[in-house]
Formats: sequence, structure tokens, C-alpha cells
Amino acid sequence: MGHMIARLQTALDDLSIAGGTIVVGVSGGVDSVALLCGLAQLAASQHLKPVAAHLDHGLRGSRSAEDAAWVARLAERLQIPVVTDHVDVASRAAAAGKGIEETARTVRYEFLQAVATDHIARWIAVAHSADDQSETILHHIVRGTGLSGLRGMPAERTLPCGVVLVRPLLGMTRAELETYLAEIGQDYRVDDSNDDPQFTRNRLRHSVLPVLRRECNPQVDEALRRLGAQASELQSAMQTLAERCLDAAVRDLQPQVARLDWIVLADQPRHLVREVFLQLWTRQRWPRQRMGFEHWDRLADLVLDADSIAVTLPGRCDARRRGGLVVIEHPEGVAREAGQAD
Amino acid sequence: MGHMIARLQTALDDLSIAGGTIVVGVSGGVDSVALLCGLAQLAASQHLKPVAAHLDHGLRGSRSAEDAAWVARLAERLQIPVVTDHVDVASRAAAAGKGIEETARTVRYEFLQAVATDHIARWIAVAHSADDQSETILHHIVRGTGLSGLRGMPAERTLPCGVVLVRPLLGMTRAELETYLAEIGQDYRVDDSNDDPQFTRNRLRHSVLPVLRRECNPQVDEALRRLGAQASELQSAMQTLAERCLDAAVRDLQPQVARLDWIVLADQPRHLVREVFLQLWTRQRWPRQRMGFEHWDRLADLVLDADSIAVTLPGRCDARRRGGLVVIEHPEGVAREAGQAD
Repeated sequence: MGHMIARLQTALDDLSIAGGTIVVGVSGGVDSVALLCGLAQLAASQHLKPVAAHLDHGLRGSRSAEDAAWVARLAERLQIPVVTDHVDVASRAAAAGKGIEETARTVRYEFLQAVATDHIARWIAVAHSADDQSETILHHIVRGTGLSGLRGMPAERTLPCGVVLVRPLLGMTRAELETYLAEIGQDYRVDDSNDDPQFTRNRLRHSVLPVLRRECNPQVDEALRRLGAQASELQSAMQTLAERCLDAAVRDLQPQVARLDWIVLADQPRHLVREVFLQLWTRQRWPRQRMGFEHWDRLADLVLDADSIAVTLPGRCDARRRGGLVVIEHPEGVAREAGQAD
Repeated sequence: MGHMIARLQTALDDLSIAGGTIVVGVSGGVDSVALLCGLAQLAASQHLKPVAAHLDHGLRGSRSAEDAAWVARLAERLQIPVVTDHVDVASRAAAAGKGIEETARTVRYEFLQAVATDHIARWIAVAHSADDQSETILHHIVRGTGLSGLRGMPAERTLPCGVVLVRPLLGMTRAELETYLAEIGQDYRVDDSNDDPQFTRNRLRHSVLPVLRRECNPQVDEALRRLGAQASELQSAMQTLAERCLDAAVRDLQPQVARLDWIVLADQPRHLVREVFLQLWTRQRWPRQRMGFEHWDRLADLVLDADSIAVTLPGRCDARRRGGLVVIEHPEGVAREAGQAD
């Protein structure tokens, strides 16, 4: 078994991907062709049924249609069912008043979910590589998405439709995937939209990362991924501790009222206290959209700052100290239906 | 009171800098000239006695000596005592087989500490600005110093000699400092070693950050500083929680033996468990230099992985589970002398 296939096997095992239908997003570029060929090789042993899905974004003139036909021929040769579709992304973006990059992403995921639903698939696999991951982390750093953005793309995520989006190639570099395709004698399409500098991601790929590698650290991609993994682990640990702290502090939870033990919280670091309230909102299904950093921080004040007695928060939410309790009343809280999953 | 002076006042208050001698590192560039002038304005009200300190690194030919004379004249005009010295950094670097940038930093801090000792100063102030902070954070990200590097430069740090190194300008941008100097009609020297591309920091300043500002996010500097502040707060919170967890787990501490309650640790997230052992090493003053990530992680295995019974660590340290305890024997542990500070 080749090097890449062995690593893909490990990734599938780590993600518990076996026994079911998996939709594979295939642009025709090196990453997605490697993913499709790798999954074709492992399909029998993993009891997997891959379905190739290609969306023609209509952004590359006649080349777009050629790509679609090329992917269809590849899938046929691999004896994998293929679904192709065409969306005029530029018109959609103009109509919605949104950017090309954002719109392309939205329609691509809509398409993949539709294919997954049609084929009763358990997974959608996309071909993001380790290089995509370091670019994403750098992109998040530069855009200012804060600590949570350092985590980069998750290896798995359950989509609203219930299908699990997986990224089995996050541990492999583009160079490794190119080597694999060369070994099996498989060519691929060159997606020149990857070179279009109107996309921020491409500017990082072509203008910034090469400078960082050459001028500062040849291993900068790896450094970014390691930083992402560290940040991810630290944040997960803090979330676990916040859940436990919330468990210890809860005295009473009603749909529109929560009563917490003030003493349990008063001794904790501010960061943990904010995280506890965030978890409370999630547990209570109170809307979080309008809650910003300063709101979580004012809740922390209520616990940590003796002078803070009461705060009013978005959604006419009222939080105040009453004796040894912190009492939060949220008029937007709704009772769960009987039998509704937690 | 001008805008910059009001903010410097706040920074001094936050750092509790009042009533004593403060050595100010002055290169003659915009940042350090602004710091010296600002401290001169606030000296009387804060009961501060500033001492200007300038080290001629001998790296800029005749301009080096001119800078030293210029700083001496500035200090004289501000009626502040000044100490200047000359070190041939290039020769020192060659003799030590180290880089110019690293050597310059070492000799500069040696010089500042010597001046502080001579003048019985409580503080050494250096003029790093918000721009320096974002450059430092980006530099750490790119070099791969991991999460701890995201914190950037601390606003205060106690040096081995007992003097406190402070950075009161970390909240102000270079542009704000230039505006302040323009307002008070004070000129400054242009340090062209800041343009020398042989220094990684300058390459980031001149090749990378301008591209990121132009191509990706005009507010990238602020995004980097916010990320640094978030990472710093999260790590401090985790350290506090680890200290408490260690307190709860300790059963017995001897100079060469520590006994911890296994059950207290076994239920904690891996990140916290590693951090607890790190704190134990610090508390026991066991050498940490040879301990790498994998060693801390093997200690965590001892707690979290039922199959791990014993590990051997650098310095012939032996750690093993014995009943409900984790027992760590470290032959390099030494008894503290009576009366030695913790």
C-alpha cells in the first residue's frame, strides 16, 4: 500500500468513515483528484460507496465546461457515479450583492448537500490539504477572527442537513498529493481560478506565504498548523472546564430564568467566567447573535466586580445578583418540546 | 494635558510607576525620544527621576557617534542625567559566533541593567510601541514559537537583577508618537538600521506587513494585537486553573519527591494536566530546560492513559503510578535554604 493511501486509510479510521455513501467534491484540481482516486482505491476495503460531485461555477468560460466533462470521464473510468451541475456564480453574486468568492462557496456547499441528500449519503468529503489549512489559519489571523479562528478548518463538522462534512486530506501537503498522482500516472486539471488575485486567499498564497518562507522561516506552513492545533486544544480544554464549572454553579434552569451560585463563579478567572455564560446561553438556547465580547464581559463583571449589581443585555435580558445567586431572566427563552434532543 | 501625555499617565498608573528612579533607553528614534520627552513632562507630578541611557552599538559608522552626542544634548536640554557608552557589537557578535541582532539586544540590556544598578533605579523603561508589538507577534507566529509567543512583549517583567523592565508605550502607535513630537516641536534621529533587511524584524516591517495591510486588511496590526491579548488572557486563566488543580492534587512535596493524588488529575483535560506538571516542576525548582512537549505529554499519559504505568524523563527523573498516587522522583531536586524566598 502506497504512502498516501496508508495515510488516507488512517484519516478515514480516525474519522470513523466506513460502511456508507460518501459524496466527494471534485473540482478536477490536484487535491480533489487525489482524494477521489484514493477513495476509489480504499472503497472496497472500507465498504464505502463514493459519489463524485462537480459543480461548474461558470467562471472560467469554455474551460469550465471542459473541466466538468473531464471530471465525468475520470469518474467513469474509476467506476464511480458522478453528478455535475452548472451555476452562473457571477450572476448569482451580482444579484445577491455579494462577493464572487463567498457566493461560489455558498452554491458549492448547497450543491454538495443536495447531492448528499439525493444519494442518502452519510458524508461529504472535501479535499482541503495541509497547505489549505495553513493558508486558512494565516487568513484568519490577518482578518482578525481572533483565537477561535486559529483553529482553522475542522476535520469534521455536522451540517444542518445532518450529513457530516469531512476533510481527510488535512494532514497531507499538496506536494505529497502531487507525488501520489505522479506515482499512479494520473493527471489533473490546473484550476487557474486559484491564481486569480481578486481572491484574498490567492493573494496570501502567492504574495505573502512565499515571502514568509523565503525571508523568515521555510517551515512557516508547519508553524501555522502547529499554532492552530495548540490553540484548538487549549480552547477545547477551557470549554470542558467551563461546562463543569457551569454544572457546579447551576441551582435552577427554567426556559426564561437561570439561577447560578455566585460563590462558585466568584473565585474563577475572568476568561472562564465569560466562557461559563457562553455555555449557559448555548444550553438554554438563548440567542447569541447580538451578544458581543463586551456583553459577556459585563456578565463577568457581575460576578467578579463587587460594584456591579445588575446588567441589561440584548433581547431585554436582565441579569442581577440576589443574595448568593446570579439570576438571569431572558424573555426570549422558549420551553423545549417534549422529546426534543438536547 | 495632551492626548499622548494623558495616555502615558494612564500607562504609568497601570504599571504603578511613581516615586523613584527610572532608566530610559534612548536610541534617538521617534519612539524613544517621545518616551523621554513624555517622562520629562510627567516627572514632577509622578515624583519620578528619569535617567537617559544611550548605547552606541558602533554599527552605523560616524552616524553612531553623532546619535550619541545628539541624545546627550537632548537630555541636557530636558535637564535629565544621561549615560552613554560604546560597544563594538559587530566584533562581539563575531567573537561569540552569534548574530548581530541577537548580540545587539544582549549588550543593550546588559548596559541598561548596569546603568539601573549604578543609579539604584526601580525601573528600566523601553520605548516599544503598538507597532513593535504587532511586528513581534507576527514574528513569533512566523518563527513558530507557538501559543506562548502570541503574547508578544509583556508590559512589565522583573529582570534577574531585580529591576522591573517596563514598556509604557505598548498601547500607542508610532503615528501617534510622531504626532506628539510634531506638536511639541521635537525632532528625532532616523535610525536607518531599522531599514537593514538583514534583520528579520525589518523584513516583516517592510516586506510583509505593508502587503498584508494593502491586500488583506488595513487593520491587520490591530488584529494581531487583539489576538495576542486574547491568547495571553486565555493562557493566564489556564495557568491559574492549573495552579489550583496542583494545590488540590498535592499530597506530599519533598525536594526530590512529589506525591500527587491521581484521582484529582485523572478527570481533567489533557492540556490542563500537562500544565499542572509544568507548574509542579516550577514549584519544585526542577530543571525544565531538557523537558520538551513530548515529556509533558508522557506525564499526562501517566494520568490519563490506563496503559501507562511509569515513565522515565530527562535528569533520571522517574514518574510512576502507585495505587491512588502519582509519585515523581527527581534526583536533581535540591532542598531550599532556610529563609529562601519562594
